Amino acid sequence: MSQYVIGADIGGTTVKLGVFSMEGSLVDKWEIPTRTEEEGRYILQDIADSCLAYMDKQGLERKDFAGIGMGVPGTVNEDGSVNTCVNLGWGYREVRREMEEILKIPAWADNDANAAGLGEMWKGGAKGMTNLIMVTLGTGVGGGIIIDGKTIRGSRGYGGEIGHITIHPEETLSCNCGRKGCLEQYCSANGIARLARAGLESWEGTTRLADLEEITCRDVFDAAKDGDEYALARVEAFGKDLGMTLANLAAITDPQVFVIGGGVSKAGKMVTDVVEKYFRRYALAGQREVGFRLAVLGNDAGIYGCARLALGDSVCQ
Amino acid sequence: MSQYVIGADIGGTTVKLGVFSMEGSLVDKWEIPTRTEEEGRYILQDIADSCLAYMDKQGLERKDFAGIGMGVPGTVNEDGSVNTCVNLGWGYREVRREMEEILKIPAWADNDANAAGLGEMWKGGAKGMTNLIMVTLGTGVGGGIIIDGKTIRGSRGYGGEIGHITIHPEETLSCNCGRKGCLEQYCSANGIARLARAGLESWEGTTRLADLEEITCRDVFDAAKDGDEYALARVEAFGKDLGMTLANLAAITDPQVFVIGGGVSKAGKMVTDVVEKYFRRYALAGQREVGFRLAVLGNDAGIYGCARLALGDSVCQ
Repeated sequence: MSQYVIGADIGGTTVKLGVFSMEGSLVDKWEIPTRTEEEGRYILQDIADSCLAYMDKQGLERKDFAGIGMGVPGTVNEDGSVNTCVNLGWGYREVRREMEEILKIPAWADNDANAAGLGEMWKGGAKGMTNLIMVTLGTGVGGGIIIDGKTIRGSRGYGGEIGHITIHPEETLSCNCGRKGCLEQYCSANGIARLARAGLESWEGTTRLADLEEITCRDVFDAAKDGDEYALARVEAFGKDLGMTLANLAAITDPQVFVIGGGVSKAGKMVTDVVEKYFRRYALAGQREVGFRLAVLGNDAGIYGCARLALGDSVCQ
Repeated sequence: MSQYVIGADIGGTTVKLGVFSMEGSLVDKWEIPTRTEEEGRYILQDIADSCLAYMDKQGLERKDFAGIGMGVPGTVNEDGSVNTCVNLGWGYREVRREMEEILKIPAWADNDANAAGLGEMWKGGAKGMTNLIMVTLGTGVGGGIIIDGKTIRGSRGYGGEIGHITIHPEETLSCNCGRKGCLEQYCSANGIARLARAGLESWEGTTRLADLEEITCRDVFDAAKDGDEYALARVEAFGKDLGMTLANLAAITDPQVFVIGGGVSKAGKMVTDVVEKYFRRYALAGQREVGFRLAVLGNDAGIYGCARLALGDSVCQ
């Protein structure tokens, strides 16, 4: 009988790997570099080799592992394939099938933000919940929508692409996706920093952000915590954009809780407070008490969620 | 063994009743008035009496009926109760349980727009699909979001409340829900008519709509079909508001198809064409081919969906 599952969160720079007990305890974790060269052809083999080396070192065999779950930074089809994954250099790849062929244990694959949502539901900020929306505010904005314990993947794998909800159709700058006015352009770490730089021109008061050569998202929240008025105005604008969008999401899938993760969430309670404030302004009367929580698994949410994928429905929530 | 199920679509004016075979063929249908007086206390009893009279007339008994499904114009809790239903005069009522007590056959209840979505999936415009969004453009705007064959009800029953997505936060007029800027204020039949009246003031060209004492939604579409420029501009504005909102919905639940129903959809292909045009402008590149269909069951979508509720998962899709 298998004792372990593996979670592999595949990012553009590193692959995070975690070995979990069947009950979901993290037993070991490590990272390997993501070799994106030559269309990322080595990535899956590197993961398999690393897992086999781990087994070898621990005196374990394939039969001790129930499977491996993988998180991929892109849209994943129902059958575990991807049509393209720019960050990894991949075109069409049957990720799930290839890994099963190489590693010879059952494999699963899903979008990385979806996996992070699963992880937070299983062992993190939404533990015990079954209906939640995970919002990952990092370089971009990712989303994982979980209903009745299952991630909404959608008919083409675009389920939960909340970073690409159009919130400012009048925008003239383009999003990475090629469209204009996406949530990601305003509420990602990059978006917050960009708007803080751009807004300085028309700000008539003083602000310590004006003295910085380069403004980061962290600078904005740090200054806001110190009472810098310009930074506070930027945080309010962020809260309004995200709070209204999440109120609209609530009218669609009606979650028990929102979990906010990713780099921006490191600013802590200031983030959830301002988002919650505007959420309550725009939400339907019966939904104003929906909870807001910070993600607690941090960078490990992905490996937890990937492990959860590999456990399928055979585990208690 | 049961041969039939009953669908009861409870509206503010009439209750539509349908008797279906277990395979989903409509055997009989009729209507009774909805007695909303005295906090709607007679509504469920009236439905039960009407069903019993039907059984009597047909020489059938309770055991011939597998159950009754009910559609209610409001938010329905997981257990088939409602906290309030203004259109029926109801406060908190255990709709499902009460009907089971009165009629003594198994009962189910869901929101009427959700039921219409189920009906269209089962026997209508989305037949054979399992992931769809039903948009009902009537007096208000209702939604039914179905994923993997199941309606998204949400943790508080607000799933699919797409009429109350905020699309124009700068709005000064209030929606029926008490908030401002909801989709329903612009894309319902009432909203289209209201905007057509309001926009006349600033329209500098001629339009036949200016000659009408009262402008209805139908007048707008009829004039647009005849090439009236003002009416065409109103139809474009409607298409932009709804098309962009549906593109945002697609980024969340990624349906195979949108089904457009309700009174506004009687204008036919002009409605789907203009909505589809703006949908493609705002949708993610990989989603531009999502289909748009007109609802085909018309006013019967509700009773079909209610019957489907009563059949549970025991029927082929």
